[in-house]
Amino acid sequence: MSFLDKLCNAARQNKSWLCIGLDSELSKLPTFLRERHGPYAVLEFNRAIIEVTADLVCAYKPNLAFYEMLGPVGLEILYRTRELIPKEIPIIGDAKRGDIENTARAYAQALFEYYRFDAVTVNPLMGFDSVAPFLEYLDKCTFLLVRTSNPGARDFQELSCDGRPFYQRLAEKACEWNTRKNVGVVVGATAPDQAATVRQIVGDEMPILVPGVGAQAGDLERAVKNSVNAQGELAIINVSRSVLFASQSEDFAQAARKAAQILRDAINRWRV
Amino acid sequence: MSFLDKLCNAARQNKSWLCIGLDSELSKLPTFLRERHGPYAVLEFNRAIIEVTADLVCAYKPNLAFYEMLGPVGLEILYRTRELIPKEIPIIGDAKRGDIENTARAYAQALFEYYRFDAVTVNPLMGFDSVAPFLEYLDKCTFLLVRTSNPGARDFQELSCDGRPFYQRLAEKACEWNTRKNVGVVVGATAPDQAATVRQIVGDEMPILVPGVGAQAGDLERAVKNSVNAQGELAIINVSRSVLFASQSEDFAQAARKAAQILRDAINRWRV
Repeated sequence: MSFLDKLCNAARQNKSWLCIGLDSELSKLPTFLRERHGPYAVLEFNRAIIEVTADLVCAYKPNLAFYEMLGPVGLEILYRTRELIPKEIPIIGDAKRGDIENTARAYAQALFEYYRFDAVTVNPLMGFDSVAPFLEYLDKCTFLLVRTSNPGARDFQELSCDGRPFYQRLAEKACEWNTRKNVGVVVGATAPDQAATVRQIVGDEMPILVPGVGAQAGDLERAVKNSVNAQGELAIINVSRSVLFASQSEDFAQAARKAAQILRDAINRWRV
Repeated sequence: MSFLDKLCNAARQNKSWLCIGLDSELSKLPTFLRERHGPYAVLEFNRAIIEVTADLVCAYKPNLAFYEMLGPVGLEILYRTRELIPKEIPIIGDAKRGDIENTARAYAQALFEYYRFDAVTVNPLMGFDSVAPFLEYLDKCTFLLVRTSNPGARDFQELSCDGRPFYQRLAEKACEWNTRKNVGVVVGATAPDQAATVRQIVGDEMPILVPGVGAQAGDLERAVKNSVNAQGELAIINVSRSVLFASQSEDFAQAARKAAQILRDAINRWRV
């Protein structure tokens, strides 16, 4: 099954375009979990979060940084987290890799074959041959950074290139490289105007991954309205910290569920 | 000691501006090693390469992709490889990471604190706050991608931005962000003209990391001449596959040493 089919099935089943970012940084987890499990607190935390939210999301998205910072044990935890996620929910490996073809092939193998992510994020700065090895995986999806959610996005992504902002050039290439319908784009919730432009460029069939809601204070209403396609779909609204860390107490999972429910419902209200 | 001091000390001690890229992809290693050691063939291969080349290089540069593709055991091998490298030789973690500030901080911690790399490569597409957490490590060096060695580099890095190619914008920002003298830039050997321009932009005190010699067929003579500073220094010429895989037989290490010697001498001939 293609990533898009899997994504849409999960979204319709759960009536949700909310994606939870499993950015489970050890130092931010409830103290009692860390005292009990050491680094494996990350695994137990993910287990609890997934258990209480698997009926509320269209996808999960772990960012690899928070696993890599623990060394090899963190990668073992990432691998085991992948196994905790129900088969019908897609998982997006947020890796933002990008390297020469030979090396990109090794990254694609790590992310798609070893960790078996359904989709990944890729940094397109190095151009086509850095992206191509990912695109060979026809049933997977490769989300290219187009307009990111952080303040620094303005440094380069908004530079004018022959009259058009750089991020639009990135979006145009994403379309050009989408001959096998397995490309997506990333546009931050902090840039809703740019999201509208990107949706126009990429059309109605490409998914847009939208980080930056919550801790990064993106405007959810405008982000959702400007990112969805004509059917009110294919905008994957990612929230990480404001769901994961809704509470530091024993009730952290239930607090996360409540935060996720509110966000899912808000997204549904604004996407149609 | 700062990265630049450590680098220059090693370069002068070994009379070498050659960097060996430890891109030790398991499937490309001599069969006898793989049969004997399984995935740990990568560690044994690195051990042999480092032993016979440590007096010929100014640095080593493992690309993380070839370790990540093996899963957690690959990262353990990367960690142990770091310990095989003599203390006086700097090691550059070629990771090309780039993410929002909060996440970049986790990557910086992984690369500088867990793996204890002396320097790393970073993809600057996401702008200042994605780079800043790396720059807080004053004795380390952060090499920003400016003009990469691959064919796809032309897709975005050569786009004209208000009259100047995008890669020049990247080089200008690298200078602007170099207030603590711990920034470097990456310019591929396949783009010697661009290297000359970048050297002009960044001045004589910034190191340029130059991949793309060897398997990628960059022109060594022009790459060296155009990347070094006025003193014929601070161009780190990286070679990976054509040294590592010079032979597939039991003599692979000696063959690698010979290839490294020839390259070191050629670089020295052309850098002055």
